[in-house]
Amino acid sequence: MAMTGPYKYSKDKAPLLSRIKKIEGQARGIARMIEEDRYCIDIVQQLNALSAAADEVLLLILESHIEGCVAHAIHEEQGEAHIKELMATLRKALRR
Amino acid sequence: MAMTGPYKYSKDKAPLLSRIKKIEGQARGIARMIEEDRYCIDIVQQLNALSAAADEVLLLILESHIEGCVAHAIHEEQGEAHIKELMATLRKALRR
Amino acid sequence: MAMTGPYKYSKDKAPLLSRIKKIEGQARGIARMIEEDRYCIDIVQQLNALSAAADEVLLLILESHIEGCVAHAIHEEQGEAHIKELMATLRKALRR
Amino acid sequence: MAMTGPYKYSKDKAPLLSRIKKIEGQARGIARMIEEDRYCIDIVQQLNALSAAADEVLLLILESHIEGCVAHAIHEEQGEAHIKELMATLRKALRR
Repeated sequence: MAMTGPYKYSKDKAPLLSRIKKIEGQARGIARMIEEDRYCIDIVQQLNALSAAADEVLLLILESHIEGCVAHAIHEEQGEAHIKELMATLRKALRR
Repeated sequence: MAMTGPYKYSKDKAPLLSRIKKIEGQARGIARMIEEDRYCIDIVQQLNALSAAADEVLLLILESHIEGCVAHAIHEEQGEAHIKELMATLRKALRR
Repeated sequence: MAMTGPYKYSKDKAPLLSRIKKIEGQARGIARMIEEDRYCIDIVQQLNALSAAADEVLLLILESHIEGCVAHAIHEEQGEAHIKELMATLRKALRR
Repeated sequence: MAMTGPYKYSKDKAPLLSRIKKIEGQARGIARMIEEDRYCIDIVQQLNALSAAADEVLLLILESHIEGCVAHAIHEEQGEAHIKELMATLRKALRR
């Protein structure tokens, strides 16, 4: 399905990369909380925050995918396969 | 709410820490995919996998919290506040 | 696993039943929106609201399950099987 | 944002309406389970199934929205606002 890149997100990678860096830091922070025997519920809250941060990146990449790849395919009258792929991806994200 | 630790999860930290290490590695892998202009949908799938992995750790910590802190509190006739805190945490996790 | 009822939620069914009635009404409202060719995104929002309402009932029943069945089992030193069942249920709810 | 209908889903309402009817039946079934003092976890599983069924309808309507309204707007060079609206809707669905 993948058009040959670069993709729309590629034009502005810095904010995505800095969000991912932050998620990496959140993971390290959670490891430290476990090592320090911190309270279970506080750790669960940090895991929640990490997943929510990953979902934000997911939505940003999905948005640029729709604005870029999907819109381009629709213009070229080849939207159908891209929309099927998009829906399969959304189904997995909703069902995760 | 937090009883003074160590908590039940503390007795077996190694598998939790290795899961978190893996999540950290997934985050680094996603950063690399972005840097290498990989296809949007492939990145979204990896973000999904990362969140699913974080949810697994969340469930493991929650399980040991219930078996440990909550069960202990129930035995001491002090379950009510712990169950309220647990439900608030579940509500946030479901609603994330 | 099921202890013989009545269960804790049974002592106060009215609010649960009225929430379920409301969900039934939401479903009927969505059917009507479809019949009236209403805008897709407005229908999606109502479906979201319906699922959120179902999740609220789910959390209420789960709370009374923990306060009732699970707490009782823990008191009787039979918490383990109940907690396993609870975690399997939470895993499905998170992963839905 | 709403284009004037009828929308793409309108051309094939029968399967959507039959799914909604089934959800309505699931709600009635859950009310009956509560009235009959059925086991908490069994009720929670049915609530999970109801939400999953609502999510399936949500995905179907979203798919026809993207194939219809969004694709049309993209063809008319007016995709931007529709994509913003779509992303806001996806954010709410993921975060529900």
